Amino acid sequence: MAIPLPVRFVGGATGAYRVLSQKTLIGSPLAPVLRVALLEGGASERLTRPDGWVLSGVTSHQRYVERTEADALRAKQAALGRSEATRTALIPISKSEAWWELTQDERRAIFEARSRHIAGTLKYLPMIARRLHHSRDLGEPFDFLTWFEYAPEHDALFDELLALLRASEEWTYVVREVELRLERD
Amino acid sequence: MAIPLPVRFVGGATGAYRVLSQKTLIGSPLAPVLRVALLEGGASERLTRPDGWVLSGVTSHQRYVERTEADALRAKQAALGRSEATRTALIPISKSEAWWELTQDERRAIFEARSRHIAGTLKYLPMIARRLHHSRDLGEPFDFLTWFEYAPEHDALFDELLALLRASEEWTYVVREVELRLERD
Repeated sequence: MAIPLPVRFVGGATGAYRVLSQKTLIGSPLAPVLRVALLEGGASERLTRPDGWVLSGVTSHQRYVERTEADALRAKQAALGRSEATRTALIPISKSEAWWELTQDERRAIFEARSRHIAGTLKYLPMIARRLHHSRDLGEPFDFLTWFEYAPEHDALFDELLALLRASEEWTYVVREVELRLERD
Repeated sequence: MAIPLPVRFVGGATGAYRVLSQKTLIGSPLAPVLRVALLEGGASERLTRPDGWVLSGVTSHQRYVERTEADALRAKQAALGRSEATRTALIPISKSEAWWELTQDERRAIFEARSRHIAGTLKYLPMIARRLHHSRDLGEPFDFLTWFEYAPEHDALFDELLALLRASEEWTYVVREVELRLERD
């Protein structure tokens, strides 16, 4: 898939992903919806009247990952769209101004050296596939839209992954977080 | 100025910046224009019929700069909009897929350790003020739009800065570059 790929998540009454639960962890909530549609690609596909909300993001080059980590990730990670991965989750987050005012070395130190965002989550691969979408530079309400896909038998593993991330120093910079657990039709 | 700040450069027959020269250094050209307008801020300001082209970008957090460098830059750099800085330049560039497939540590090594993009250009501050706009994740034709402002007496210094950057290893990844030299009304 070519990068950058624009992606929109449309919450409303329609879409291939049924909402199992929707909760707000930090900050202001998103309007509750029944379903989510995932739309990939260009602006030609217009959304004239979404019945809930539209969150836009773009897949992009890696911002923190170093070569040895990239190779380890590539060797272990699964692609999106596996037939058995019927459980999915959309977790939009925003980080504080304090985070964005840090320099690259400071953010990297928090992200990996101290929070072990990469090394600590390698054990959840390939069971839990993920894709990160960048939104901040698009003027969106969230900074990132994270998308996860896994088989129902890995529900507890997914809980563990989220608990790990949320306990990290990195997460002290999160000022808004909403979690939607979904089931693909 | 709040970051991210969306910015549009509109090339055409109108705008506060008169084109002194427009040249294509690498890759395909931009349509020749007489003037450039610089529009900052939100999407409310609509462009119904630009007579040339519109290039969009967004100011964003630093991608490579480390703390000691950020402090050195902050201590030396000038703000945009100085009354004496009537010469300006817009240099849109794109980098190759090979660049974007590099990991953060590999890009940083080329950008600073080997090309000295930060340390080597500190000597041009505060005479030449600059602002970087990110465009790649917006689905734009260029990856970056760089904007420079300086007084006419520093024309030769600006030539020297461009020559330095273009001779760097980093620049071997540039696949498109257009240079517009401008004069503010």
